[in-house]
Amino acid sequence: MHSRSAAILATSLFMLAAAPSASPTGEATLAPPGDSEPAYTADGRLKFPERYREWVFLSSSIDMSYRGEAAMQDHSMFDNIFVDPAAYRAFMRTGTWPDNTLLVMEVRGAAEKGSINQHGKFQAGAPMAVEVHVKDTKRFSGDWAFFAFAGTAPAQQIPTTAACYSCHQQHAAVDTTFVQFYPTLLSIATQKRTLRPDYHP
Amino acid sequence: MHSRSAAILATSLFMLAAAPSASPTGEATLAPPGDSEPAYTADGRLKFPERYREWVFLSSSIDMSYRGEAAMQDHSMFDNIFVDPAAYRAFMRTGTWPDNTLLVMEVRGAAEKGSINQHGKFQAGAPMAVEVHVKDTKRFSGDWAFFAFAGTAPAQQIPTTAACYSCHQQHAAVDTTFVQFYPTLLSIATQKRTLRPDYHP
Repeated sequence: MHSRSAAILATSLFMLAAAPSASPTGEATLAPPGDSEPAYTADGRLKFPERYREWVFLSSSIDMSYRGEAAMQDHSMFDNIFVDPAAYRAFMRTGTWPDNTLLVMEVRGAAEKGSINQHGKFQAGAPMAVEVHVKDTKRFSGDWAFFAFAGTAPAQQIPTTAACYSCHQQHAAVDTTFVQFYPTLLSIATQKRTLRPDYHP
Repeated sequence: MHSRSAAILATSLFMLAAAPSASPTGEATLAPPGDSEPAYTADGRLKFPERYREWVFLSSSIDMSYRGEAAMQDHSMFDNIFVDPAAYRAFMRTGTWPDNTLLVMEVRGAAEKGSINQHGKFQAGAPMAVEVHVKDTKRFSGDWAFFAFAGTAPAQQIPTTAACYSCHQQHAAVDTTFVQFYPTLLSIATQKRTLRPDYHP
């Protein structure tokens, strides 16, 4: 998550046709536990996590950049981070992520003027990008893999040479995930002593 | 929600001692459905919704103000909005809110410099305020009531003369709730034709 590489963002910016939490009939129910497992096509592409908007919210941010300049100078965007419920429960218990953890970063446009709002920014419109970070120590060298979805079609893994992998490896507080930006998890990791030993707040 | 009245914010700004999603032992499980019903003390105070961080996230915003100036000039704050799962399911099906709907606004500080971040803002620290909007057409005149929590102690209803009531009544897109700021719900309300007839985007 928060892989603010312009290259990755550029490949993943797109407009989804509809809010992913609603089925075509507008019917929706909370995902049963089985729905939060990653699912792959025969050729190894990750299927789109249709119900991620009903998972556990970790945090949101706006216009984050790790380079001292805005990632997209002419756009203002929120990131919303969600995790599947089973992985969330495991993290709250242990401060670590189990295999099959799915972290979803959804990017939404930030609007300023709208309705009665006069200041600040709110989220508006369909998702502009959905990226997923999956843990599977048997499937992936390096234990984790990133996928950037174009619409809701299954996504190929982002090559492990991409900057998101090395950045998460070097800077993320817990097991290549940016727990330092998720306040409710940071307190758990601190308490469980699962922050990486060389992590400096 | 988004009742950006300085008076209301001032009464509700406080620091919670700990992240509300973790019990003292750090154990936490997803809330069973029964946990998402409002509960009251004998004298009518609303009990704190302990598991709201595991409910369905609707959206977040930053530094919103309905007055053309920042609500708190010297603070930058995110609002996170959550709804209980049963009410969410009902809204996705009907575009309307059932009795016992609980909407929670959590306010968190916005940090800019931290870890490797150089630009934009992320959420940091414990909640600064938690306000709840409850629907109960039998209990409340006007169908809905606001409660501002100081810590996790049960909260008295905010008097119906407060500005939050009249502002939500006048400007909210669906049944006194600011669905215009919740992208996934706005598309449902549009499709189900439950936006108030005089709502102008």
